Amino acid sequence: MAITDHRSAPRPGGRSARVVDAVHTAVTELIGEATGPDCVTVPAVASRAGVNPTTIYRRWGDLETLLVEVAMSVLSQDAPVPDTGSLERDLQAWTDLLVTDISRPERRAFLRTVVGSMTDERSHCLDKREAQVSRILDRARERGEPDVPTLRDAMDLLLAPLYFRVLFGYDGVAKSDARRMVSRLVACT
Amino acid sequence: MAITDHRSAPRPGGRSARVVDAVHTAVTELIGEATGPDCVTVPAVASRAGVNPTTIYRRWGDLETLLVEVAMSVLSQDAPVPDTGSLERDLQAWTDLLVTDISRPERRAFLRTVVGSMTDERSHCLDKREAQVSRILDRARERGEPDVPTLRDAMDLLLAPLYFRVLFGYDGVAKSDARRMVSRLVACT
Repeated sequence: MAITDHRSAPRPGGRSARVVDAVHTAVTELIGEATGPDCVTVPAVASRAGVNPTTIYRRWGDLETLLVEVAMSVLSQDAPVPDTGSLERDLQAWTDLLVTDISRPERRAFLRTVVGSMTDERSHCLDKREAQVSRILDRARERGEPDVPTLRDAMDLLLAPLYFRVLFGYDGVAKSDARRMVSRLVACT
Repeated sequence: MAITDHRSAPRPGGRSARVVDAVHTAVTELIGEATGPDCVTVPAVASRAGVNPTTIYRRWGDLETLLVEVAMSVLSQDAPVPDTGSLERDLQAWTDLLVTDISRPERRAFLRTVVGSMTDERSHCLDKREAQVSRILDRARERGEPDVPTLRDAMDLLLAPLYFRVLFGYDGVAKSDARRMVSRLVACT
């Protein structure tokens, strides 16, 4: 194996990182522009990003995987999980952040596109949200708070109605509704 | 105005009804076949139905309106709203029917396509479901049952978690889960 001068060698992942950036940007732009019957497809993303569609299929496999990756990279810029010392206050602070996020028009459009591209596999696009709630519930259990709800109840009573309202355009999502959902989760499970 | 021999005149709406049939069938077939990056578009539906895309735009305006109409026509073949004389039993019978319906793979695919095609307008694709729940709640109020939940609570605690699980592929939707959601709705609101 030849010894290369690593000052002149390309940075590892340099081109690859540029492709990822261009593809992520293309996805975000296309979703922002899509209206009604248009849709976000691998060829459309490839053309916008200036890469070959096979590059996308080779790296991401399919459109949903790519969309979930973009969703995750947005989420990872989020504020840390609230830690106020009380389960109900933690959940309220967390849902306030969530409602702010998913009420943004570009975020709603994004969520709908992700759902539209899903198959029957369990989607991973809410894994980060699930991990955040899980951490809040675990901390409450560690503090010895009584009657801490299960993760499944938190998904059914908190995430489900918030995402349902956003996806189907019901009533909007006011922070007061979200706080009521939190109180109900803490009181009723 | 000329008097026409109505034995030889085309049935009113004859061609129109054939177009509607062909377009509905095309939508159902395409959604059944769509996998991952493919998507259901007006041109694809038109080509499958053997009509001009402008026919579809003229009659339905956009893809979401067409998808909702197809969804509605499937729903209207449903069994009537249960009427057992008890709110909890009505809701349980109703959710049993709903779970059977939305657990079918072709129905899940359909729902995801509808969500993917939505805009920020309030979607009408669950109007029929909402009317059915509303009728069950109204009947309970008329019988004088105490503490009948509001429609909004029924949407948040029953429809939302059921559709959320189906759309995001969480845990599947067992009838036992649905019954637990009903009990919680009746007990906790």
